Amino acid sequence: MPANPPLYAYIHGQFTPLDQAFLHISDLAIQRGYGVFDFFKVHAGEPLFLNAYLDRFYRSAQLLELAVPLERAALAGVIEQLIQRNNLPLSGIKMVLTGGYSANGYEPGVPNLLLTEQPLALPTPEQVATGIKLITHDYVREVPPAKTINYATGIRLLKQIKAKGADDVLYHHQGVVTEAPRANFFIVKHDNTVLTPDTDVLAGITRHNLLALSAPPFRIAEGRVTLAEMYQAKEAFLTSTTKRVLPVVQIDDFVLGTGRPGPVTLALLQALLDLEAQEQG
Amino acid sequence: MPANPPLYAYIHGQFTPLDQAFLHISDLAIQRGYGVFDFFKVHAGEPLFLNAYLDRFYRSAQLLELAVPLERAALAGVIEQLIQRNNLPLSGIKMVLTGGYSANGYEPGVPNLLLTEQPLALPTPEQVATGIKLITHDYVREVPPAKTINYATGIRLLKQIKAKGADDVLYHHQGVVTEAPRANFFIVKHDNTVLTPDTDVLAGITRHNLLALSAPPFRIAEGRVTLAEMYQAKEAFLTSTTKRVLPVVQIDDFVLGTGRPGPVTLALLQALLDLEAQEQG
Repeated sequence: MPANPPLYAYIHGQFTPLDQAFLHISDLAIQRGYGVFDFFKVHAGEPLFLNAYLDRFYRSAQLLELAVPLERAALAGVIEQLIQRNNLPLSGIKMVLTGGYSANGYEPGVPNLLLTEQPLALPTPEQVATGIKLITHDYVREVPPAKTINYATGIRLLKQIKAKGADDVLYHHQGVVTEAPRANFFIVKHDNTVLTPDTDVLAGITRHNLLALSAPPFRIAEGRVTLAEMYQAKEAFLTSTTKRVLPVVQIDDFVLGTGRPGPVTLALLQALLDLEAQEQG
Repeated sequence: MPANPPLYAYIHGQFTPLDQAFLHISDLAIQRGYGVFDFFKVHAGEPLFLNAYLDRFYRSAQLLELAVPLERAALAGVIEQLIQRNNLPLSGIKMVLTGGYSANGYEPGVPNLLLTEQPLALPTPEQVATGIKLITHDYVREVPPAKTINYATGIRLLKQIKAKGADDVLYHHQGVVTEAPRANFFIVKHDNTVLTPDTDVLAGITRHNLLALSAPPFRIAEGRVTLAEMYQAKEAFLTSTTKRVLPVVQIDDFVLGTGRPGPVTLALLQALLDLEAQEQG
């Protein structure tokens, strides 16, 4: 069996084998955790919803006062070349923009732009079939509309999540639910309306795509979701680029509905899959 | 004039010229801003208050569930060798411990330990002589007792600080004062008592050293400081390893006392300098 060909990354303005992609330790991501990123899927050579992801990436950079070193058309060109070089059937591309090499270890330099492409790590079929469990934690991300690289709270909680037999954590602030570290959150109420928190959340592309599906038979809206409302929901799910619509069946000690992925959740997953297929043309 | 000899860093378990010290981009500091650090001064080859800084570094690592790859005695030995190699008259050593090379871009790997030593960047004599200006911002650091690498809020505010003609930002949460991004904060009240916030603050070594000076003529304590109390203070100052005791003369639109560094602040600066001289033996 032939070895896999090396994957390429884009760094310092050129394509480099991923295993040779390094940053000097003066970079402000290493010194001060300073940077933004974004992540999108590529199916059979075609990025899905690329414009929405590029919009958000440039907006995140602006919110952290970082200049993306490539104009949008040039960045789209680099993405296309990276896809051609790596030639993966199904992948995710991650774009990271750091604070750059800092002269004094605190003030940003010229931002470093990194692009990597890797095979996609999707939820397991078991997770989709049985649903996942969440714990809750009081925390609001800094600059919620920006997709910053700071995941200290979520990563620090990994051991606690595992110890409690859960799969992920859901953030709230003083009882008002927001999002998971890497996903937006929705509940399905007993009248079958679908609700997703409206404040202090990342503007998820999958979240946006779901909200755009709000037409009969679906009623989907943004609004305030409290912990108490959430514990009483009939169904719940996470959305993200890789998770798509991932059923949630337990939150803290509360089993939701029947304790199995519900019909509204599964119908929305199918609707999203249809939308993705349509986007691929 | 001969060129400066290259500075060495310690990375991947060995001493490497600083300009050749790189991390692979899979490191969790770059991918997720995940890491802790600490920083201490070295005078004429001798680290100042090293034990206190090592205590805090190992504590920070533990709070982020990261294992320092060197036992304490071995780390002290590496520090000693780094000081001998670089042979700087006055320097700061920074120890950074990252989440390591992550297989999936989210879960920590084997932590990477980096040590760098650089000439010390002290406040300018003008800043000490005239005092500095602060603005305020509502923010609480994640895991306040841990010295994490996350400075997104402070760095993002740099432009706003400059636009307002200020030098730094002071954090508060709902009107209760905490700390600056890289320094602790003290006020001097009109009865000459000195007070520093007691919750949601980093356990600063200089802060600790000042609190230990609380004996006549000084009365120094930890306690709650509100924005209103702070605006009415007679004097105020920041403390940190590099700033020592740095006078603050204006906060937002409020000029403190005479608008010049005050006698209690300057007496405490001198007391700290005496303590440092004593520590150097």
